[in-house]
Amino acid sequence: MSAPLPQRLAAEALGTGLLVAAVIGSGIMADRLTDDVALALLANTIATAAALFALVTAFLAVSGAQFNPAVTLVVLMRGGLSGSEAAARIVVQVIGGLCGTILAHAMFSLPLWQAAATMRSGGPQWLAEGVATFGLVLSILGAQRATGAPVAATVALYIAAAYWFTSSTSFANPAVTLARAFSDSFAGIRPVDVPAFVLAQLAGAGLAAGLAGWLFRSDAGTEEK
Amino acid sequence: MSAPLPQRLAAEALGTGLLVAAVIGSGIMADRLTDDVALALLANTIATAAALFALVTAFLAVSGAQFNPAVTLVVLMRGGLSGSEAAARIVVQVIGGLCGTILAHAMFSLPLWQAAATMRSGGPQWLAEGVATFGLVLSILGAQRATGAPVAATVALYIAAAYWFTSSTSFANPAVTLARAFSDSFAGIRPVDVPAFVLAQLAGAGLAAGLAGWLFRSDAGTEEK
Amino acid sequence: MSAPLPQRLAAEALGTGLLVAAVIGSGIMADRLTDDVALALLANTIATAAALFALVTAFLAVSGAQFNPAVTLVVLMRGGLSGSEAAARIVVQVIGGLCGTILAHAMFSLPLWQAAATMRSGGPQWLAEGVATFGLVLSILGAQRATGAPVAATVALYIAAAYWFTSSTSFANPAVTLARAFSDSFAGIRPVDVPAFVLAQLAGAGLAAGLAGWLFRSDAGTEEK
Amino acid sequence: MSAPLPQRLAAEALGTGLLVAAVIGSGIMADRLTDDVALALLANTIATAAALFALVTAFLAVSGAQFNPAVTLVVLMRGGLSGSEAAARIVVQVIGGLCGTILAHAMFSLPLWQAAATMRSGGPQWLAEGVATFGLVLSILGAQRATGAPVAATVALYIAAAYWFTSSTSFANPAVTLARAFSDSFAGIRPVDVPAFVLAQLAGAGLAAGLAGWLFRSDAGTEEK
Repeated sequence: MSAPLPQRLAAEALGTGLLVAAVIGSGIMADRLTDDVALALLANTIATAAALFALVTAFLAVSGAQFNPAVTLVVLMRGGLSGSEAAARIVVQVIGGLCGTILAHAMFSLPLWQAAATMRSGGPQWLAEGVATFGLVLSILGAQRATGAPVAATVALYIAAAYWFTSSTSFANPAVTLARAFSDSFAGIRPVDVPAFVLAQLAGAGLAAGLAGWLFRSDAGTEEK
Repeated sequence: MSAPLPQRLAAEALGTGLLVAAVIGSGIMADRLTDDVALALLANTIATAAALFALVTAFLAVSGAQFNPAVTLVVLMRGGLSGSEAAARIVVQVIGGLCGTILAHAMFSLPLWQAAATMRSGGPQWLAEGVATFGLVLSILGAQRATGAPVAATVALYIAAAYWFTSSTSFANPAVTLARAFSDSFAGIRPVDVPAFVLAQLAGAGLAAGLAGWLFRSDAGTEEK
Repeated sequence: MSAPLPQRLAAEALGTGLLVAAVIGSGIMADRLTDDVALALLANTIATAAALFALVTAFLAVSGAQFNPAVTLVVLMRGGLSGSEAAARIVVQVIGGLCGTILAHAMFSLPLWQAAATMRSGGPQWLAEGVATFGLVLSILGAQRATGAPVAATVALYIAAAYWFTSSTSFANPAVTLARAFSDSFAGIRPVDVPAFVLAQLAGAGLAAGLAGWLFRSDAGTEEK
Repeated sequence: MSAPLPQRLAAEALGTGLLVAAVIGSGIMADRLTDDVALALLANTIATAAALFALVTAFLAVSGAQFNPAVTLVVLMRGGLSGSEAAARIVVQVIGGLCGTILAHAMFSLPLWQAAATMRSGGPQWLAEGVATFGLVLSILGAQRATGAPVAATVALYIAAAYWFTSSTSFANPAVTLARAFSDSFAGIRPVDVPAFVLAQLAGAGLAAGLAGWLFRSDAGTEEK
């Protein structure tokens, strides 16, 4: 994270935007090409994970490749960012994500701005979002702690798994969740369902950060890949 | 494995629990979304392997990321663990796995505790479990021996292959097998079928450990990735 | 890129040719085996990305494994190639790509030379090609900048994602686009649609190169994988 | 390849045997679970590639993880093996492969020994086998030449691609081809079709070895991953 601030913020905006475009765009493509929802979700999963790998690899040295307000808040809690930079990152992540939605719609000849109608709500899905984000933050912090660990692959594959093992298909990212509220497509979520998802994500992230502080204590050694 | 004991045990419990949640949860999701069993197994495979990669990467430096009583026993046989720690690890793996089952059910609005009805039994499947665990242990010990080898990727991809090339879909893990007995879903196994599966797994693991002692002798050189 | 010039050009021709054979051949195979277009695209995606990984890994140290006139032009812009070598590379990429088309047809018992009938045109698809190539170039330059970054995996996975998140299925390569115009199969594109695709690709690549000059400035530090 | 000879031969036998079990076993499983041939081939592809990755990683430091008479002959041509060891390796690869066939059948409750009825013949398929093995050998030699290159991933992903982009589904291995002749299942090949496949494979391997001698000359530099 040694790039200057403007580059750091540009990387966060661009990375979040392209990530959202990949999530929404691949959902639209998959939904158009098949009637089998599992196959559509599989294509959506592979595209999302592959995009995450490429984007995290490309931007890791610039901004830490957070692309996610929950992750940014965890880094802030752990003293890795100033409060003002964290706030600025979250703002550009949200703006970048919304631009990603518009970009995906433009590429697929759809109205640029839509309100999603897919209901995603209820205790089990909120639990799922909490678990998804808990696991994501724990995976990131665990991978970062090991020297030379493959952070990009870890994030990408964790999300690939969580698309399937959580009932909410693992949004796990407040900026991406908000951006998906404006796409009435495979990846959409009703705007009214966003706040509870975001709260669940933040709760999961906070829990993971607390646990990681104990589990990955710096006096606990650093080992092999 | 230089973290203190409580962290090591927490990592084993958490890793096994999240692994079981991924196996069972992705099976439920896949089964709901498609009628094609091959597609469901493919999604289940990808989710399991991806979760394994992320969890092994995150916890390798804490506890060795065993998540599997058969692997723990092999490490014990090879002198890498005390008997009391091995016993403690197996206990927390089993408990963690059972909690993973409950978590998966909670996320998918299902009864938290179920008895599986899927019969998995007979000589060919027992052979398959023996082969699956034999190959798993051999892959792990072979990968660990090479400096800088990608252990997490090796474990994840071996299991991905074994889901398909064994007639039992490769449980290959006593704690996961037991946890799957309490889920009447895609990944389930009748409780009565568990003991034979576990015995076959332990036999395969023991055979692999013996063979590896000769095949990967430490005087036999260590080479490239 | 320290191999002598003949080897560099041979690597570019061979790599582009095998890449095109993989793209077109896997499209023919997938199209023959299923009626589900999403499944065909998924197989096409996996084959393309896997071939890219192997070819980039094999030829990276010989020629930089560009296999793409848009990438060669970006390297030229950044001062990494002489103008005459860039021109020679583009010529052999185009020739290699056309040979790849013929090879794919020969392996599948099809007329060696065909004119594709698949219309791929219009503003959204041109935007998609621009976005696809923009992201490809940005991913490559970002990955190259980080020491020891997995360039082959980044390119392969970026393309895998872009096959799904762009409405054009991400050709993102002028030589491959031209080669696909001579295959009336799953991967085809009408010859008349090629020029606009190539222009969009060059625009996206140029934009990415300009942005990368600022975003990945060499005084901006180089960090972890 | 610094392990003693018995270990080297055991690794070649075991690796080839498990590879064949993975190829045939996953074909049987996929064929049973779906009517969509593309989906069956996709599962077969993923299982084969994943098994290759794990087996090559586990045995690379023991025997070079050749598992393939065509590769062994290339290493012999390049002076990396004595003639007698090459002969011994080919013998154990063939025996190991046949045992893998029997093992797969035993796991799936099938007659242990069968004659395959699937015709795989004709010029286009012979060309395909030549191309498949040519690309495999070129990928291996290219990857080996780069310091720290991911050889296991390169082999695995090359084969994944070639399953789809060649009309023969890329056997690319004489020992595996012979072993598949004794399985009348998804992966089978009529015994009478084996010799031409093997000849085509050897021709492709020889061509690649010759080309690689020029393309990857040792005075041509060694660079980044």
